[in-house]
Amino acid sequence: MANRPLIFITNDDGYNAKGLKHLISIMQDYGDIVVVAPQKQMSGKSHSITVGSPLKLTLNNEEQSLQEYSLEGTPVDCVKMAFNKVLNRLPDLLVAGINHGSNASINTIYSGTMAAVMEGCAENIPSIGFSLNDDKSDADFSFCTKYIRSITEEVLNNGLDKNICLNVNFPQGQIEGMKVCHQAEAYWDEDFDVEEKDEGKTFYWLSGTYHCTDKSPQADYNAMMNHYASIVPMHVDFTAYNFIDKIRTKFETL
Amino acid sequence: MANRPLIFITNDDGYNAKGLKHLISIMQDYGDIVVVAPQKQMSGKSHSITVGSPLKLTLNNEEQSLQEYSLEGTPVDCVKMAFNKVLNRLPDLLVAGINHGSNASINTIYSGTMAAVMEGCAENIPSIGFSLNDDKSDADFSFCTKYIRSITEEVLNNGLDKNICLNVNFPQGQIEGMKVCHQAEAYWDEDFDVEEKDEGKTFYWLSGTYHCTDKSPQADYNAMMNHYASIVPMHVDFTAYNFIDKIRTKFETL
Repeated sequence: MANRPLIFITNDDGYNAKGLKHLISIMQDYGDIVVVAPQKQMSGKSHSITVGSPLKLTLNNEEQSLQEYSLEGTPVDCVKMAFNKVLNRLPDLLVAGINHGSNASINTIYSGTMAAVMEGCAENIPSIGFSLNDDKSDADFSFCTKYIRSITEEVLNNGLDKNICLNVNFPQGQIEGMKVCHQAEAYWDEDFDVEEKDEGKTFYWLSGTYHCTDKSPQADYNAMMNHYASIVPMHVDFTAYNFIDKIRTKFETL
Repeated sequence: MANRPLIFITNDDGYNAKGLKHLISIMQDYGDIVVVAPQKQMSGKSHSITVGSPLKLTLNNEEQSLQEYSLEGTPVDCVKMAFNKVLNRLPDLLVAGINHGSNASINTIYSGTMAAVMEGCAENIPSIGFSLNDDKSDADFSFCTKYIRSITEEVLNNGLDKNICLNVNFPQGQIEGMKVCHQAEAYWDEDFDVEEKDEGKTFYWLSGTYHCTDKSPQADYNAMMNHYASIVPMHVDFTAYNFIDKIRTKFETL
């Protein structure tokens, strides 16, 4: 390829995460790489942006076709900073991850990794989030490689439709193939670990259990549980279009 | 009404915001009120949750039909805390706001107020976010009152369909009526104010300009600019269903 693609990479597990390093190593075969990743762990930060306090950017490594920055900010801050202050042109592709832990189903709404992907999508950049259903810091990402390659080649060659991005989730261990899915309906049954402090103060630590209420084999969580890599096309339009006419008759006549 | 509804209220502008106080004063006519609102300003915190550090809850005021708590956490933390540790049953209604500033269009994806509403929706609670297109701390919310009353009465009497919530945005000044809308397509053209520090460090302060690319009068931002209160039915399913079949033929055959 005469002009190598410009590929931007970020994540939410932070600059030193193994999943990020693995994704960089794959992407180096496809283009010139710029990484801007959070200095610290930013899981669960969703589409959070930093307003009213400054962002600090550090260039950690510069090679011929690889620049690696860390940012004291959120994943979406990383995208905004890269697109506006770091890259000398908009990238041909944004990839985020590989996330340590699933971003299938309802998890996507909490995920900083998927928020970065949706931010790319809002800016009309082909954007893909990759996640592995294993949250260990030393998770084995090697068996995801050939699927990441296939998806990346398809998107670099043919693009993605305007206004959509991809949420890709890999099961642990064996992968049977890829399945295009919808976001599984589910909820978290939260709990809080309670800690009573000496001064009479109570501290609450968030925890919880995931419950999938979606029985469809086309639901991303179920496909992943059945050893498929799930691919969900996502958009940043939260409108529930099917309900517009129904609620119009209720509310416009009040 | 024999059994008064239980109404949960939160926001992202923080516990002391004028918009929150105004919303509480309206809701007291309709039910028993529990407020859990962030201790500090949490605008732009989206669906961020606090994991790995504790949440501190403070009861600030307790009257017969009104309990007011503040939480050192995000708006979504407030919802999770309330539903799991504060309320003795799930509420009949969740309302958030009144936000100081518009959450129409792409703003909804960054908003902590709308994230709280979507969290309520994910938990199957009828949930409504109210925002005014005026971000001043002393904004005048009085002319929104009759519309908030109409919407609240409709939802308390007839509920909302499963899996949808409402994003309501008010224009400044005169309101012509209510319009049911879709989320306007738009983007932020970010910029960063750059500050060079003595030690050679560079600090970046996020700012930007909003651009609406949606010409439809049914787009929420445009309705608001035309002096209507916009109402968008939203859901927490980010799947772009129209693209599932199209991308299936690409990706399942790779």
